Amino acid sequence: MLINEVYHEVQSLQLEGKVANYIPELANLDIRKFGISLVTAKGEVYTIGDADEKFSLQSISKAFTLAMVFASEGEALWKRLGVEPSGNPFNSLAQLEYENGIPRNPFINAGALVITDIIRSKTAKPIDDILRFINKLVNSDTIKINQTIAISEIKNSSRNTALAHFMKSFGNINSPIDELIETYCNQCAIEMTCTELAQAFLLFANYGQNRFNGDQLLTRSQTKRINALMQTCGFYDEAGEFAYTVGLPGKSGVGGGIAAILPGEFSVVVWSPGLNPKGNSAKGMKALELLTTKLGHSVF
Amino acid sequence: MLINEVYHEVQSLQLEGKVANYIPELANLDIRKFGISLVTAKGEVYTIGDADEKFSLQSISKAFTLAMVFASEGEALWKRLGVEPSGNPFNSLAQLEYENGIPRNPFINAGALVITDIIRSKTAKPIDDILRFINKLVNSDTIKINQTIAISEIKNSSRNTALAHFMKSFGNINSPIDELIETYCNQCAIEMTCTELAQAFLLFANYGQNRFNGDQLLTRSQTKRINALMQTCGFYDEAGEFAYTVGLPGKSGVGGGIAAILPGEFSVVVWSPGLNPKGNSAKGMKALELLTTKLGHSVF
Amino acid sequence: MLINEVYHEVQSLQLEGKVANYIPELANLDIRKFGISLVTAKGEVYTIGDADEKFSLQSISKAFTLAMVFASEGEALWKRLGVEPSGNPFNSLAQLEYENGIPRNPFINAGALVITDIIRSKTAKPIDDILRFINKLVNSDTIKINQTIAISEIKNSSRNTALAHFMKSFGNINSPIDELIETYCNQCAIEMTCTELAQAFLLFANYGQNRFNGDQLLTRSQTKRINALMQTCGFYDEAGEFAYTVGLPGKSGVGGGIAAILPGEFSVVVWSPGLNPKGNSAKGMKALELLTTKLGHSVF
Amino acid sequence: MLINEVYHEVQSLQLEGKVANYIPELANLDIRKFGISLVTAKGEVYTIGDADEKFSLQSISKAFTLAMVFASEGEALWKRLGVEPSGNPFNSLAQLEYENGIPRNPFINAGALVITDIIRSKTAKPIDDILRFINKLVNSDTIKINQTIAISEIKNSSRNTALAHFMKSFGNINSPIDELIETYCNQCAIEMTCTELAQAFLLFANYGQNRFNGDQLLTRSQTKRINALMQTCGFYDEAGEFAYTVGLPGKSGVGGGIAAILPGEFSVVVWSPGLNPKGNSAKGMKALELLTTKLGHSVF
Repeated sequence: MLINEVYHEVQSLQLEGKVANYIPELANLDIRKFGISLVTAKGEVYTIGDADEKFSLQSISKAFTLAMVFASEGEALWKRLGVEPSGNPFNSLAQLEYENGIPRNPFINAGALVITDIIRSKTAKPIDDILRFINKLVNSDTIKINQTIAISEIKNSSRNTALAHFMKSFGNINSPIDELIETYCNQCAIEMTCTELAQAFLLFANYGQNRFNGDQLLTRSQTKRINALMQTCGFYDEAGEFAYTVGLPGKSGVGGGIAAILPGEFSVVVWSPGLNPKGNSAKGMKALELLTTKLGHSVF
Repeated sequence: MLINEVYHEVQSLQLEGKVANYIPELANLDIRKFGISLVTAKGEVYTIGDADEKFSLQSISKAFTLAMVFASEGEALWKRLGVEPSGNPFNSLAQLEYENGIPRNPFINAGALVITDIIRSKTAKPIDDILRFINKLVNSDTIKINQTIAISEIKNSSRNTALAHFMKSFGNINSPIDELIETYCNQCAIEMTCTELAQAFLLFANYGQNRFNGDQLLTRSQTKRINALMQTCGFYDEAGEFAYTVGLPGKSGVGGGIAAILPGEFSVVVWSPGLNPKGNSAKGMKALELLTTKLGHSVF
Repeated sequence: MLINEVYHEVQSLQLEGKVANYIPELANLDIRKFGISLVTAKGEVYTIGDADEKFSLQSISKAFTLAMVFASEGEALWKRLGVEPSGNPFNSLAQLEYENGIPRNPFINAGALVITDIIRSKTAKPIDDILRFINKLVNSDTIKINQTIAISEIKNSSRNTALAHFMKSFGNINSPIDELIETYCNQCAIEMTCTELAQAFLLFANYGQNRFNGDQLLTRSQTKRINALMQTCGFYDEAGEFAYTVGLPGKSGVGGGIAAILPGEFSVVVWSPGLNPKGNSAKGMKALELLTTKLGHSVF
Repeated sequence: MLINEVYHEVQSLQLEGKVANYIPELANLDIRKFGISLVTAKGEVYTIGDADEKFSLQSISKAFTLAMVFASEGEALWKRLGVEPSGNPFNSLAQLEYENGIPRNPFINAGALVITDIIRSKTAKPIDDILRFINKLVNSDTIKINQTIAISEIKNSSRNTALAHFMKSFGNINSPIDELIETYCNQCAIEMTCTELAQAFLLFANYGQNRFNGDQLLTRSQTKRINALMQTCGFYDEAGEFAYTVGLPGKSGVGGGIAAILPGEFSVVVWSPGLNPKGNSAKGMKALELLTTKLGHSVF
């Protein structure tokens, strides 16, 4: 199978990168961990390496919260944030200042905070709703938050807290900031395995349908739009590079995970905690590049 | 046929936009002009409206010069420019300053000037080579420059001249600036019809192969990469919006043309000179959004 | 006396400006209020208009906190902030991002927060120390905080809270943010009359000496340096304009006050709550321009 | 005499800096050169070191061209440029872009190009006029251009040429760019000795009057304003530092010269070609800091 070939070729390259070091739970991850899961639209599952080990979603969680909010709000959502690549690091305040507190897109931190703020305005238990949404996608009830990571994230949230207060000064955040940051740090600390995450990401490969129960969570058009956003904005200031070398819509997180999809075909998740200088998994980027190159197939 | 339906629906919307006004040849275009051509991978041609009227390529020419240079230089090309969306207007100098004269991507003006500079370093007659490349793609020898437009562009090239001198100060331009600007303005003034341009763009839908003579001008991987660049960077600071609403790799020009492709399926060109506030054809954007929505098919 | 002439000439110009509207206590100020006090180095006091009415210092308080910290820390202070004009609005985050959390100067909000953070690190009762410092300068014990204003400021501190969290993310703030913001809002809400403030500002005209008790609070060189900072940075992005038209070191606040000095000669305070578009008192700017023009004397 | 003391103390510090290296004529300057001239308002001249050696004015020439244009245009001048510190390097394009081609002040390169453009619009022989203006200030006819330096400057003018084309694109430059750059490079290549330059700068210490013939070239108010501009903007992004440590209005050039004045008292010029990282003479900055510290006197 192709992912085995990819796995071994990447291993031979001895790419390392560096683990995220802003919280001990990420800094202590074993840099040698490396797993891949690919799930086809028909539900066939292929795995190799550490594909059944849990890791924290971090920014990958933004894809799920966006899906939840887009399903409920539709296009009205875009009054509070944009759909353009930022051309800046994921936690930049400069651009937000020039653009009066309206984040460029839902995948930079500022935009994801707005999305979480919207979820909070709809429910008394936002983190439960997020977990329920994800658990349904994997036909399970075992997806949970790693509390140790969540607490560490909260302790190290100065930059995100600054972003939230800053947007509040423009009237674009309604939640109490402390509670918003708590929800946000909890969503980032959700843990899944490569296989679970690939199952859940099938939503985006499968035109908006939950494969397990047939629920149409997003319209075909909405799914296209989220995929387009992942393609143009899903990898911070390396989104162009990912489109260029891999050519699949996807989303990465500083926990070392990358989830990507080929519409109608498959979803694929790679996890390896060593990050490249732009904050994306070094082995993950290479694995996905090899996958689409060997496959001779991408969205482009 | 679908494009007829799209054509009439767009006409009913009475979108107008504004013609580009920096040169009289564009300012005097009839804003009611509107044409669509779609060419399938098999070579079937569908047209409606003013699809056989010539218009100037303007920035769409950047896709052809990139293809020429990428074919000859390969990945070495990226020493002099990047592959990331800029998040800024197409002729911004600010970003270029922060990034030491290395343009973000080949579709902002600064990047396109670097590409043209490379072409100039390879040949004594750069504009002839560019025309030859395009003529071969349409199996013709009739594609030419509109001299009146070229001369007007040269007269109004202060901003591009500034960009070129600025990059030269960083050592990233080698041509004499006047000559570089002349070549660049000439390439922007190349005229084609919707149908001709759609024929030529089939290169990108057809995995790098010239449909008429079977020449493999770009590898499959190179073609993927150019398509990815068009997707993430082809519409200035509206690239995200185009990916979001249309979901096809494409390139627009201030002459009112937009060319886009669905890999393996078709190329499509819309021309209408009224531009939206971001500088992209207002009817063109809407027509392509309707096309992929009605088709239920895009790259995403 | 000159200030009477200035006062009446300004009144005849019907300059209005707009009161600050971010808190009701400022928004409700009577825009017709206008007072001037000039105190000579020898202690002669000249007043006209509403010179004995209390107003909140707002950013003028930054001059006093800087003096306190500079006296105790000396040049070591500049490890945590700079001495250059910002060229940006007073509460900009963009520049702070490019410069890794080191504020440009002590008179933009970010820099003033660092100064207050230093005061907090030295004492258990920071606001008492600040009040004691100012009261000594006016040989009094009646200078106090307007609690209503302080509470309103705290309620409307999103932007400053963002700045503080942002600098904390770079390790340049040590206080708990809530407490820092509380101290800062309290210092901004200190109330003085034109005459009291002019008495206190004599410190800067008088080469660092407290006129009442002869204490040398700042060295002559330190006083020069604070005056230089007020000249280049004391009026936000209108510092150049103030140097150009008035030519005196000074500091303004959104409460409508402007305090300025001519070294060795006098201090002068103008208060009028209508602000120009840059946030400086409209009548105050004009009054001081007329004063130095009629006097034929400024620092330049 | 004080300047001797300053001279020897600076020599003992072994400050070196680096010569400007963008043209050979500056790169080959002897870094050990060091001269000081101080001329009092009464005309007494004090010199030490290499005070009678010619060096090129470079950006110091901007003070003279501003004086010429301000005298003829008055406040109308400020329609085309501003009076605020830039907070950015002297040749930045970024800020110019955000501010639509209106330079922040007359001492950044963009602003100085606008000033020279105005001179060019008034006369057929702009460089002759500039030389005549300066020669009158020193009661001489020997001040000339170093042609070798002028030619080198022209060869290395990409960045300034970019600035000029960029402003032209906003309609803020009228001259043919090549001719403007030629005039500008010639004015930068004017050579003077420390003593000659100090004589000429007495204009600014002497409230606008030519000491030799009594001509009132600038009003007292205009002189104040130019001095204020030198104070806030005369040292690029080190203007705050110069105000802070020295406390005199002044102007520096990459040729290693710094000219400064104390109104009503004296003008002083230091020349030493080794520059600090901000592009100002390393020995010059220190010498002037020592001068005002020892003197216990500055504008502040």
